[in-house]
Amino acid sequence: MRAAVRILLALVLLGAVSACAHVSDAQPAVSLDGKWNVFVTFANGSSAAEMTLTQTGNEVEGQSGPLDENRYFPLTLRGRRSATYVRLAVTRGTTFVGNITFNMETANSELLEGFGELYGVTVQVVAARTVVNTQAPAVHDYAPTTFFLQYSARHKPGLTVYPGDTVRTFTLDNEGRDKQLKYRGMPGNTLTGPIFVTGAMPGDTLVVKLNKVSLNRDVAHMASSGLDGRALLPGATQTRTPNWNRNWVLDRERGVARPETPTDNLANLELPLKPMIGSIGVAPMFNQALMAGDVAFHGGNMDYDRVTTGATLYFPVWTAGALLSLGDGHALQGDGEISGQGLETSLDVEFTVDLIKGDALSQVWLEDADYVMMTGIENGLDASLQRATTGMSQWLKKRYGLSDSEIALLLSASIEYDIAEIVDPRPNIVARIAKSTLAMLKPLN
Amino acid sequence: MRAAVRILLALVLLGAVSACAHVSDAQPAVSLDGKWNVFVTFANGSSAAEMTLTQTGNEVEGQSGPLDENRYFPLTLRGRRSATYVRLAVTRGTTFVGNITFNMETANSELLEGFGELYGVTVQVVAARTVVNTQAPAVHDYAPTTFFLQYSARHKPGLTVYPGDTVRTFTLDNEGRDKQLKYRGMPGNTLTGPIFVTGAMPGDTLVVKLNKVSLNRDVAHMASSGLDGRALLPGATQTRTPNWNRNWVLDRERGVARPETPTDNLANLELPLKPMIGSIGVAPMFNQALMAGDVAFHGGNMDYDRVTTGATLYFPVWTAGALLSLGDGHALQGDGEISGQGLETSLDVEFTVDLIKGDALSQVWLEDADYVMMTGIENGLDASLQRATTGMSQWLKKRYGLSDSEIALLLSASIEYDIAEIVDPRPNIVARIAKSTLAMLKPLN
Amino acid sequence: MRAAVRILLALVLLGAVSACAHVSDAQPAVSLDGKWNVFVTFANGSSAAEMTLTQTGNEVEGQSGPLDENRYFPLTLRGRRSATYVRLAVTRGTTFVGNITFNMETANSELLEGFGELYGVTVQVVAARTVVNTQAPAVHDYAPTTFFLQYSARHKPGLTVYPGDTVRTFTLDNEGRDKQLKYRGMPGNTLTGPIFVTGAMPGDTLVVKLNKVSLNRDVAHMASSGLDGRALLPGATQTRTPNWNRNWVLDRERGVARPETPTDNLANLELPLKPMIGSIGVAPMFNQALMAGDVAFHGGNMDYDRVTTGATLYFPVWTAGALLSLGDGHALQGDGEISGQGLETSLDVEFTVDLIKGDALSQVWLEDADYVMMTGIENGLDASLQRATTGMSQWLKKRYGLSDSEIALLLSASIEYDIAEIVDPRPNIVARIAKSTLAMLKPLN
Amino acid sequence: MRAAVRILLALVLLGAVSACAHVSDAQPAVSLDGKWNVFVTFANGSSAAEMTLTQTGNEVEGQSGPLDENRYFPLTLRGRRSATYVRLAVTRGTTFVGNITFNMETANSELLEGFGELYGVTVQVVAARTVVNTQAPAVHDYAPTTFFLQYSARHKPGLTVYPGDTVRTFTLDNEGRDKQLKYRGMPGNTLTGPIFVTGAMPGDTLVVKLNKVSLNRDVAHMASSGLDGRALLPGATQTRTPNWNRNWVLDRERGVARPETPTDNLANLELPLKPMIGSIGVAPMFNQALMAGDVAFHGGNMDYDRVTTGATLYFPVWTAGALLSLGDGHALQGDGEISGQGLETSLDVEFTVDLIKGDALSQVWLEDADYVMMTGIENGLDASLQRATTGMSQWLKKRYGLSDSEIALLLSASIEYDIAEIVDPRPNIVARIAKSTLAMLKPLN
Repeated sequence: MRAAVRILLALVLLGAVSACAHVSDAQPAVSLDGKWNVFVTFANGSSAAEMTLTQTGNEVEGQSGPLDENRYFPLTLRGRRSATYVRLAVTRGTTFVGNITFNMETANSELLEGFGELYGVTVQVVAARTVVNTQAPAVHDYAPTTFFLQYSARHKPGLTVYPGDTVRTFTLDNEGRDKQLKYRGMPGNTLTGPIFVTGAMPGDTLVVKLNKVSLNRDVAHMASSGLDGRALLPGATQTRTPNWNRNWVLDRERGVARPETPTDNLANLELPLKPMIGSIGVAPMFNQALMAGDVAFHGGNMDYDRVTTGATLYFPVWTAGALLSLGDGHALQGDGEISGQGLETSLDVEFTVDLIKGDALSQVWLEDADYVMMTGIENGLDASLQRATTGMSQWLKKRYGLSDSEIALLLSASIEYDIAEIVDPRPNIVARIAKSTLAMLKPLN
Repeated sequence: MRAAVRILLALVLLGAVSACAHVSDAQPAVSLDGKWNVFVTFANGSSAAEMTLTQTGNEVEGQSGPLDENRYFPLTLRGRRSATYVRLAVTRGTTFVGNITFNMETANSELLEGFGELYGVTVQVVAARTVVNTQAPAVHDYAPTTFFLQYSARHKPGLTVYPGDTVRTFTLDNEGRDKQLKYRGMPGNTLTGPIFVTGAMPGDTLVVKLNKVSLNRDVAHMASSGLDGRALLPGATQTRTPNWNRNWVLDRERGVARPETPTDNLANLELPLKPMIGSIGVAPMFNQALMAGDVAFHGGNMDYDRVTTGATLYFPVWTAGALLSLGDGHALQGDGEISGQGLETSLDVEFTVDLIKGDALSQVWLEDADYVMMTGIENGLDASLQRATTGMSQWLKKRYGLSDSEIALLLSASIEYDIAEIVDPRPNIVARIAKSTLAMLKPLN
Repeated sequence: MRAAVRILLALVLLGAVSACAHVSDAQPAVSLDGKWNVFVTFANGSSAAEMTLTQTGNEVEGQSGPLDENRYFPLTLRGRRSATYVRLAVTRGTTFVGNITFNMETANSELLEGFGELYGVTVQVVAARTVVNTQAPAVHDYAPTTFFLQYSARHKPGLTVYPGDTVRTFTLDNEGRDKQLKYRGMPGNTLTGPIFVTGAMPGDTLVVKLNKVSLNRDVAHMASSGLDGRALLPGATQTRTPNWNRNWVLDRERGVARPETPTDNLANLELPLKPMIGSIGVAPMFNQALMAGDVAFHGGNMDYDRVTTGATLYFPVWTAGALLSLGDGHALQGDGEISGQGLETSLDVEFTVDLIKGDALSQVWLEDADYVMMTGIENGLDASLQRATTGMSQWLKKRYGLSDSEIALLLSASIEYDIAEIVDPRPNIVARIAKSTLAMLKPLN
Repeated sequence: MRAAVRILLALVLLGAVSACAHVSDAQPAVSLDGKWNVFVTFANGSSAAEMTLTQTGNEVEGQSGPLDENRYFPLTLRGRRSATYVRLAVTRGTTFVGNITFNMETANSELLEGFGELYGVTVQVVAARTVVNTQAPAVHDYAPTTFFLQYSARHKPGLTVYPGDTVRTFTLDNEGRDKQLKYRGMPGNTLTGPIFVTGAMPGDTLVVKLNKVSLNRDVAHMASSGLDGRALLPGATQTRTPNWNRNWVLDRERGVARPETPTDNLANLELPLKPMIGSIGVAPMFNQALMAGDVAFHGGNMDYDRVTTGATLYFPVWTAGALLSLGDGHALQGDGEISGQGLETSLDVEFTVDLIKGDALSQVWLEDADYVMMTGIENGLDASLQRATTGMSQWLKKRYGLSDSEIALLLSASIEYDIAEIVDPRPNIVARIAKSTLAMLKPLN
């Protein structure tokens, strides 16, 4: 029962419930060939994947799930079609792991329903054709009323958009306060979203172009009165000043920030404003629910100061609809965010989403007018640098067809690294290569 | 006997042998008060330190060695002066570790000679007054004929200079070849130097202002055909192209470098020249001899691209004369030097040395027109970042008297990090703070 | 509406719905004083915490949430009681964050109901007195039918027990197969559980005594044909043998395991069986949902070979009921689990649960006949060792009142470290101290 | 002149100056074929290597230096022999780097003299046949009078032995004090040695069997009053007790150590004695001089408690004579040496040296009755574990001919790791495999 509700929900979210869904008699045989989006629902969870089927005579073959070995459901399907059913044996590698049966009596050209058993677990299955949006791109003015503290596939989307649409919205500060400093959500890098992007499926790439990231109030805070222990040598100690004044004035006209009630030593300090989004990402794989302050393959709390107006971000999709969320704005931030905070504030944000079918790297990357940038988020700075460099190498190979030695020459002579943050559960090192350098290379096709 | 020779050598190097050194009869009593440079020589080594003595009646007290607890000889001296001798008991903390006796019959206002036992080891001791150079700064055109592969106190200096002097010299490439591509030394970041700076003693700060770092030939090389394993994720593999063309053309007129015989994919690649000194440092503490390719508290193979024209470097001195060496020029280099090499070439270099008595940080720092920069060289990137940040915190405290909370606020909002290299035995992360930001602070006194 | 359902569910789970819950008229005034368990439910989540109230005249004061600064709800409550309501202002530190009102007309000695706003979010609140179990400890034969792939507070408990109860159950192997090698759940360290422990609240310590961990079939597998990249030097490569035989025979009579169809080189290899539980833990804080293969403060995939018969584990509780899960049995395992797998198999397990109110360390620890052991799970081995040593230091201070210098002396002379695993998202280093050494110390009170 | 002196010294040390060295006339032509030990001396250093020559007609070919690419002089020699000279061009890879000429007029069957230029540097060359010791193994009672603070090729050997000889000697404690607590050397893990092992050349393996490691006094000390910062989480602080009592009583009869004047809390503490050598190693490659407290490929301050009676250590040789030194005895030590010290004391030591020609691994390994053990000394624990595992993998491949997949299976199921120390400049993780497991494998040949 609950499963049925979920499936219906999934279809509604996909915008895929066509009027003819229940009309099946006296029709020509529904073709199985080609791509389907599959939703699998079971007692303790659900999963979404792409499925490709090919029918030859009555023999049906197919594959479900991205073929990347690190993804969850790389399954092979093999079986036969009868007048009323398609029965498919499911194998993972060489191991038989279950079967799925689609009911062809209720099928139509847009929708298959079925059931089966995978890994000993009873599942219900719905397969729908990929959504094609024929409408002009829309602009959504999205004023969220609920906010979340996690990147998670279980949260109900606050907005559904099509690829090509633009969203105008705002984010709360890290404590859940809006531009009037009013609490609107629980503290903890409170997130706007999630936003369901129709048609996005695991293995796809979600594109988010940040048209505008702007301050919407005149005050920020940096609550810490000391540096994070990870920024200092083992054994180094600090004397923290009690009741340390935490607020900063954001002088948007002059483009600078200054401490609200500075100590004598810092009386003249002013730093240039550079608004940025600290935390932005999609729902993580495997139905995980990760804190808004955590950071991983799905993005999240990347705390990188080039995530700002003019940047385009590319996220691997792990969940139907991608489920984009964002928050934790900073008026400015030093490298590494070494006190654990930037100048925390609320933001107004406008962005345009798009979708690239397939083509997902296993890590977030971005570009702006000057650079292509690859995040590296692993355990410790050494591993994070390795992840960023490896990702950049893969990107260069894919885009330009360079050999390993060509990549070594190019990167060794021109790579740049930023240490975005060291204080979230894992550090983020970003590898950059200048577009002026890339312009000297010939892209594939 | 050998010890005597060494002492003499030390004095010659110090430029401290005054004409009156052997005239001691019928003179007023030599004053012990004030600062001396002490040379201690023993069967298996030698050491240099500053010594301060105070005579009250016949009681003599003093201290030898920088008081920093990490330095080698923080010794306390206590004893009495007779007509012919000063006998001093030596303690380290509360532990008696030996005694020293100066012969006052041979003493003069510039020089004390003595002997003793420290830690059970027979030692000979010479103390000389600090050298004062009364001459105008000189310019030395230094064409080295021998080159070394190590930073070490045991190498014979190739040049002796005074603080304020300027040196014009050249460096070989990392394989020991000069601007005619002729081998002049063994390969291995072959070093020009060491240069003895008269008056430099352990605990002092050696200042090296790089007036000019310039290319002197039209070819460089980057020998590696792959990335260093430390730049890529564990398990990542590379196919290295055999006979990979290693040479680059340095087009000094147009200010760019290009591969000499590029592959098709890289046919249009040109990168801007940015000549820099890869390896520069002083003799390390404790009589260690460290490879020119190694990097530590003494500097060495820092591989940082801001070590170039206009930069001023500050080195802690560990050895009498400091013993500056330099080499491993790069025509340009990417962050991290991730193939293990930059564009390796020979250089012409002009620099001016100076000396700050005392005031040594335990790590190398530098400045140029735009930034104050602190190196961080430890095991792994996490620890190197900690070293750089801790050093910068100490520098800010010392220079501006900031509290820990003020430092946290300032750095968290404005620090910048560079990953200079990850391939030498230890990685080098440099923390930077803009001089435009520092200009808003009030320096102490 | 949904919130009401949730609250009811929470109360049922707590076993706290007493028969008199709706009888409130003509009774003496309900006392607020003392400890309550509080459940807070809101549009996008829920939270549980302890609350302590004190009434003085009509003034009511209290605190909610563990006082440990790293926990989520350390709130201060202050307000007044009227005939029908208790209205409490809520502050976090010095910041006003909302208010809560309890309806005293529906209150009884066991239960308060209320509503309010926290951080701008509408909440419903139920407070119940702590459950006291007056029954004899029970033994539960628990044959699970659904299995989960995550440690998460959102999963429906499969079993509810009281402190003191014993559970006999089984675990599937890492691929979801039982002792007949039949798939019973999705692959991925498939977990038995979660088990709801009545009365467990955030801040408490869940005690799990493993009475018996035993093999229940004659076959295990180790699927990898190579070592994990993190076990080998950067750049090291391996040639993996295709179709590598993965199965091992578990000879329970002779107590050894051997490869089922070994290569010639390994024809004589037999290793002693040492069955262990690879993954065991509680639901993580902040409503996170973490993979069964992940490992953190809540336990999880600790892969430590001393988690076996005779060991007692201590978990910090983050969620009402603690929600214990377990799986990923190994017939034996080398240090570090360096291929990513042990000898993976299903297990029969018997354990007794208990509860210590409060007293939670922020990391899992355990003991057996010979050792007290502290897990250390952080980013990289260096940090994991630091976490284990710091935890052990805190435990010694708490248990024996030792000073830092006494701890330094004791640990420096007698600590032992195990590298449990390096292949899960974070490595686990365990610090051990022998009970024979602890027996020389005097515990506090 | 100095070079000639050095060459003579080298020959004396080798024991290779035969009586007929200067008699060359009217003899049959000296054969060049086969192995020679080569000593190269130049203005700023010296180097030793093996050289193999083959004469075919007048054509002479050969190689000098271990062929391992990480070693210093892998040179190819090619040239012709005339009546009076052998002239050889020297190449490194495909690069011409110089030439060497041997004077055949002064040559004899044991000795060649020559000169040349390598890398633009004038060199003198002496080649001598490998020494064969025809005498019975000797026992040396070696009472050292000078002690060193470094592992270095420049120190004059205190004792010369042949392979097979046994040495009975003593070591000072880490502060330079002997068994009467008398200072005999400067503090800093003061080393006994170096000991020159006749015939040892770069690329060989030095074998040191520890027959006996025993305490020779009743007192030890552990000077630190706190844990090393690297043992605790970033930001953790300790209160150090001033004037902390540092001395321990070594009760050799009962086999236990106890604090000399314990605090009340530690009044009953006694820990079992387990004497061990903290620092033992050979002169490092490239003429480096490394501190006795440093640790690397050459051994040094490994601080591993299985380096004790019954252990046999295998060192790669980097210098003619290997130059073995040892010191830094501990009466006992916890894993990691986390305060920076064990129970520091002097020791009596008896060991037998042997030599395996060639066969050097690039890291120190050892064995005892129960285990084969591989040290792993790199930057940080992660890299050290990788080094230890990689070394063990190479050892298994070399000794048993196992494939990578066989090694993965074996190690994943049976490897054990010890964390020897984390406080020396680099940490040491030791990988162990039980001899009972190795006994199930078939060694090659």
